[in-house]
Amino acid sequence: MRMTDVIQKKRDGGALSPEELSFFIQEYVAGRIPDYQAAALLMAIWYRGMDPTETAQLTWCMAQSGEMVDLSSIPGVKVDKHSTGGVGDKTTLVVAPLVAACGVPVAKMSGRGLGFTGGTIDKLESIPGLRTSFDREQFFEIVRKTGLAVVGQSGELALADKKLYALRDVTCTVDSLPLIASSIMSKKLAAGADAIVLDVKTGSGAFMKTLEESIQLAQAMVRIGEHHGRPTVALVTDMDRPLGWAVGNALEVAEAADTLRGRGPQDLTQLCLRLAQEMLGAAGLGGPEDCRRAAQQALDTGEGFSRLCRMVEAQGGDSQVLEDTHRLPQASCVHPVKSPQSGWLCHMETAACGRASMVLGAGRERKEDPVDPAAGLVLRKKPGDWVEAGEVLALLHTNRPQTVEEAQTLLLKATAFSKEPPRQPPLVQARVTAQEVERF
Amino acid sequence: MRMTDVIQKKRDGGALSPEELSFFIQEYVAGRIPDYQAAALLMAIWYRGMDPTETAQLTWCMAQSGEMVDLSSIPGVKVDKHSTGGVGDKTTLVVAPLVAACGVPVAKMSGRGLGFTGGTIDKLESIPGLRTSFDREQFFEIVRKTGLAVVGQSGELALADKKLYALRDVTCTVDSLPLIASSIMSKKLAAGADAIVLDVKTGSGAFMKTLEESIQLAQAMVRIGEHHGRPTVALVTDMDRPLGWAVGNALEVAEAADTLRGRGPQDLTQLCLRLAQEMLGAAGLGGPEDCRRAAQQALDTGEGFSRLCRMVEAQGGDSQVLEDTHRLPQASCVHPVKSPQSGWLCHMETAACGRASMVLGAGRERKEDPVDPAAGLVLRKKPGDWVEAGEVLALLHTNRPQTVEEAQTLLLKATAFSKEPPRQPPLVQARVTAQEVERF
Repeated sequence: MRMTDVIQKKRDGGALSPEELSFFIQEYVAGRIPDYQAAALLMAIWYRGMDPTETAQLTWCMAQSGEMVDLSSIPGVKVDKHSTGGVGDKTTLVVAPLVAACGVPVAKMSGRGLGFTGGTIDKLESIPGLRTSFDREQFFEIVRKTGLAVVGQSGELALADKKLYALRDVTCTVDSLPLIASSIMSKKLAAGADAIVLDVKTGSGAFMKTLEESIQLAQAMVRIGEHHGRPTVALVTDMDRPLGWAVGNALEVAEAADTLRGRGPQDLTQLCLRLAQEMLGAAGLGGPEDCRRAAQQALDTGEGFSRLCRMVEAQGGDSQVLEDTHRLPQASCVHPVKSPQSGWLCHMETAACGRASMVLGAGRERKEDPVDPAAGLVLRKKPGDWVEAGEVLALLHTNRPQTVEEAQTLLLKATAFSKEPPRQPPLVQARVTAQEVERF
Repeated sequence: MRMTDVIQKKRDGGALSPEELSFFIQEYVAGRIPDYQAAALLMAIWYRGMDPTETAQLTWCMAQSGEMVDLSSIPGVKVDKHSTGGVGDKTTLVVAPLVAACGVPVAKMSGRGLGFTGGTIDKLESIPGLRTSFDREQFFEIVRKTGLAVVGQSGELALADKKLYALRDVTCTVDSLPLIASSIMSKKLAAGADAIVLDVKTGSGAFMKTLEESIQLAQAMVRIGEHHGRPTVALVTDMDRPLGWAVGNALEVAEAADTLRGRGPQDLTQLCLRLAQEMLGAAGLGGPEDCRRAAQQALDTGEGFSRLCRMVEAQGGDSQVLEDTHRLPQASCVHPVKSPQSGWLCHMETAACGRASMVLGAGRERKEDPVDPAAGLVLRKKPGDWVEAGEVLALLHTNRPQTVEEAQTLLLKATAFSKEPPRQPPLVQARVTAQEVERF
């Protein structure tokens, strides 16, 4: 087989066969297909797209290009959860313990963040002593003992994705639906879960800005999962405003702990219960009502909170900080941002909140940058609230006081007021399964 | 400026600015833009095309990426001629001497061939002693002395084209009109002629298979030349059958010499006269009739033939072989291919004739392959002729007798007969200038 034939077929609008896709991925990872031929193919895919079967097969080849994790030594149906990423998204820290408390094991591998805030791993590492790097057997043992573990994603997972992603980034081929879907799902398939729940964010703070685009991405990913025998369901959820109040690593851990103790923000609590319900459903625990009730109970009884504490201890961390969140890393400077006017807060551009948090030290511009666990911001007002002039909109947390002005400017520029109370979009805007798209 | 912005602009259908094109070409040649980003841009150009201004500007940047030959030390209007390449195309060897005989200097740089037969340089090198490698001053001196010289194209001409062409070849981006046109014209602009005559081949043996495609390519190239102040005209000429009888290096030199002595095949003679007329017109020698008459006279008087002899001598070759062409390299084996049936010969696939010639040793598969000057084939019948069963269709010339069977099979498979005499397409199918397209 020749790579030029593969490029030409896709260039002219053909669908690549499993053999062609496998040839491309294997030879590319082995370094026998050069980047310039891969770049030409990626650009052709950008223009021509891929049909669902092709996308599923590409994803499978990518998954198989690295380690395929075998979770079979952990009893039960393992359900994975993936979020396409947003600002203030600490759902994993809440949902995984709730689900584990209901008897469904969660063996989760997460990434570090690139961008606004850290990833789940960065957030967890703000807990003193906590480790996220374990060998496979230790990882499984923690899951068997405590029902859950959240560890760093191995660099050996879906090797082709790592290499292709770096290439897409410098060849303007990132925003291609089949390439986005296969990138995410190749890692999910390789991570070995039996079923997958996807949280596809939509809105100004998400990769996909419109509901329709988000639904298309959700459908593409659900099809891939189902094609490979992994029951998959996706919720399309609002990211037109930050989720919860807190943005930043330790600040989000504190908010997650508060949520598991029944004192969290309404939107975060509701989304976590809904995601937990979906995961329990995917694990076969019963109908939606039963699953919802089980999740709610895990929250109300504090069973979820205990699970998080047990996991933190099993991973070497000090779970006392979850009870007394003031013992988490604290920023030396906390600066209030005050409202310049009175009115209904109608918009707070999510990406700008994320950028402000990054400026304060919570995120990375480059993947080698460190994150400051204490940095970030806590909103006091969100879209839909009435605000008096001079009231505090947000508190900026940082160890670099010189960044406060820039962060404050970003935040205020991202904020808009109206005379009428704004319409609030639903938190969960659609539910996508292999069979249907349900819109809310 | 960032290459990703350039790629994205073209990917989304924008027209690149002179600054963007210049940035791409300069940085790419300097090795500061990697092949994978160039490949992504080339594929985007393949899909989106380029407008005439963009194409002209890209061409200029490519021309300037290497040496710009300055022909001003040679008196007179220098006219260059370029053929897009076909089977049996030895026109340069006939046209350049005719034009020089009319007082218009021809300082021509030609390439070696890749494919069916050698290029003009390979053909010339079948003349014993003849050199094609001279430094610039020697080259100009030969032109000043004899009125013409045909030398090898310097590797320093249009460096960007060399690098881009190699990349296009392995990324399926060869067949893009603006990329083909800019590749050819960048070398013509760099070679320094004042005016340019293009011979765009069309038909089964040409790169462009249909008349419309060929006219589009001709228009794109003419626009580029005119944009940069070089009067340019293109003839679109038939390559649905080989040109003349001979295909192969020494065989074509012999046929060119015969043609200049008034004993050449009709089609070759007519095309050479027409091309010479266009070149003389471009040099300002007068109207079409005057130029035609001058070219015909140079042929009839033997002035053209003498010019070729003088050039061969000036380039160190033995011009006696042009008088006595049997002293050119001769193949050890000459094999007649006989017609399997009687009928009107209605088709002889040109590309297959070329391939047969290559198999016999006349062409290259890879650029490092040597060519056999003696190898090739001489047609005895061409489309439009009546053939009796058993009559000789062609003579195969080779020093590798083991290749005869394959070449014969290729040739016979490419030959078709009919009961009616076939319609002959005109030799010159269109004439394209900046102002108009004239179809014949």
